[in-house]
Amino acid sequence: VTSLHSALGSGAEFDIIRNMLRGRLRADPRVRVGPGDDAAVLDDGTVLSVDMVLEGVHFLRGWLTHEEIGYRAATAALSDLAAMAAEPIGLLVSMALTDADRAHAEELLRGADAAAVAVGAIIIGGDLTHSPDRLVLDCTAVGRADRPVLRNGARPGHRLWVTGRLGGAASAVRSWLRGEEAASSTRAAFVRPAARVAEARWIARHGEPSAMLDLSDGLVGDASHIAAASGVRVVIDEASVPVAAGATLEDALDGGDDYELLFTAPAGHVEALSTDFEAAFDVALTRIGEVETGKGVRLRTRDGRILDRDVGGYRHFGSRS
Amino acid sequence: VTSLHSALGSGAEFDIIRNMLRGRLRADPRVRVGPGDDAAVLDDGTVLSVDMVLEGVHFLRGWLTHEEIGYRAATAALSDLAAMAAEPIGLLVSMALTDADRAHAEELLRGADAAAVAVGAIIIGGDLTHSPDRLVLDCTAVGRADRPVLRNGARPGHRLWVTGRLGGAASAVRSWLRGEEAASSTRAAFVRPAARVAEARWIARHGEPSAMLDLSDGLVGDASHIAAASGVRVVIDEASVPVAAGATLEDALDGGDDYELLFTAPAGHVEALSTDFEAAFDVALTRIGEVETGKGVRLRTRDGRILDRDVGGYRHFGSRS
Repeated sequence: VTSLHSALGSGAEFDIIRNMLRGRLRADPRVRVGPGDDAAVLDDGTVLSVDMVLEGVHFLRGWLTHEEIGYRAATAALSDLAAMAAEPIGLLVSMALTDADRAHAEELLRGADAAAVAVGAIIIGGDLTHSPDRLVLDCTAVGRADRPVLRNGARPGHRLWVTGRLGGAASAVRSWLRGEEAASSTRAAFVRPAARVAEARWIARHGEPSAMLDLSDGLVGDASHIAAASGVRVVIDEASVPVAAGATLEDALDGGDDYELLFTAPAGHVEALSTDFEAAFDVALTRIGEVETGKGVRLRTRDGRILDRDVGGYRHFGSRS
Repeated sequence: VTSLHSALGSGAEFDIIRNMLRGRLRADPRVRVGPGDDAAVLDDGTVLSVDMVLEGVHFLRGWLTHEEIGYRAATAALSDLAAMAAEPIGLLVSMALTDADRAHAEELLRGADAAAVAVGAIIIGGDLTHSPDRLVLDCTAVGRADRPVLRNGARPGHRLWVTGRLGGAASAVRSWLRGEEAASSTRAAFVRPAARVAEARWIARHGEPSAMLDLSDGLVGDASHIAAASGVRVVIDEASVPVAAGATLEDALDGGDDYELLFTAPAGHVEALSTDFEAAFDVALTRIGEVETGKGVRLRTRDGRILDRDVGGYRHFGSRS
């Protein structure tokens, strides 16, 4: 994410810095997209995104092996490049290691390397430092996109699509927090998510997506980002949401870290392609709603109610609001 | 730094991952410089570096205001771009904030923004997350260099040069660790270092530097990086080392975080330029030694002894070896 901008929230206390950053960006022809989208884009099409994870905040020791921690941290950054339909090139891996982690540095890097290689990128650098108590990883992904797909192009009448099946990662976290084992399929969703790079580039080439992002805050929360950036309302049809095996509808709606693609496209553009897509990638492509005039996110529930959900999403497992 | 490679150390336990990363890089035409230099360089001249700092490891709360923490963290990453004679463009700022830090997020960003603007760059993105206990910042700097100056071009007969005066930051840290106030000039060296971007680009344009880096591990430690990368011995003449006011020779030799430029150049190239340089930037430019056949770092002490110093440098204030 380059969520610095939106992550500052709507509080007036950040208005000064937010306006300062906006002003600087407007005046700088070297930057095409600044904070607030999935990734930053320079004038030559260089795309950059960064994602920080801390032990005890984003995962607990015992949930993941070191290799899985490295893989997952790298995938989070690479998935942001997928969300722009960019071609990933390089990965910078910053790690703060406890004394106990030092013996596992190679496994952490091996996991990050596997995530990079899976999408055609390689580790080009990083930083390695000491942490007294808590493992910290911050991965920066760099790539290129001639025509990055942003969050701001959704228009009334466009259709809402999602790849894959949702909620598996959230279901695994729920199991662990109850002190139980996670089912193997939900565990896999948490520890081994895929960055949908090839899928996103296929969609950008064939489907004329008007807005796209990767699901990291949860379906409702991320849909609200498209709504806000595009100045529209996003309507989600609960009955259409593809729920992962072992997960609940709530996991799918509000759970985070699925890293699937959520995008909008004009009516008729993707409908004819979904069979080809599913054949090419063995990944579901599901229409789950549409775009309307308005703002925020509206849910059509399975029992026919209409619910307006302006906020929501995954806020780290320890502090869900 | 993109010190991942060298930071893994010489232990055999990292040979596998080191060889794996090297092999991947050799096979990828999109990457010109990988881990091990100050920054990574892509085939189109895009230059990237990242630097992570943790409260309690790189600084203690009370030494720095939040604005200074942000400024200093950003400068560390931007200084790596200076070391390649690159033009900085953008900065990504990842922050893990404690509950108490949240009220200071704007000051942290204001400091990072000031460091970026000072060298012609702007904040283009970042990540903001929660930390239960410890402030963490990881800054990624991106820029461009048509002809990056690497660490591997020093040859026997070349001269060794350094900008500025050394040891001020280390002297301030020594004072604080003794529970004393730091002198204002040494405090300034620690809290408000400059990334020598304009100076490095001037040197690259006029001085034909053969190897260059920014001082972050200390003069001896960083000189050993040039020696290792270039396959030469670097000789430092202690009597020539420009020591900052309030600092000792030991601070200058082994203290870290000066962020001055250390470079080599063929004899005669820089000698005639140093007056112009000092006039243009109001920064000292001092010849402090030369390059020989051999390896490691050799000190000519003030009292005429010869000391071979293969290792050394700043390893965080808590764990100096």
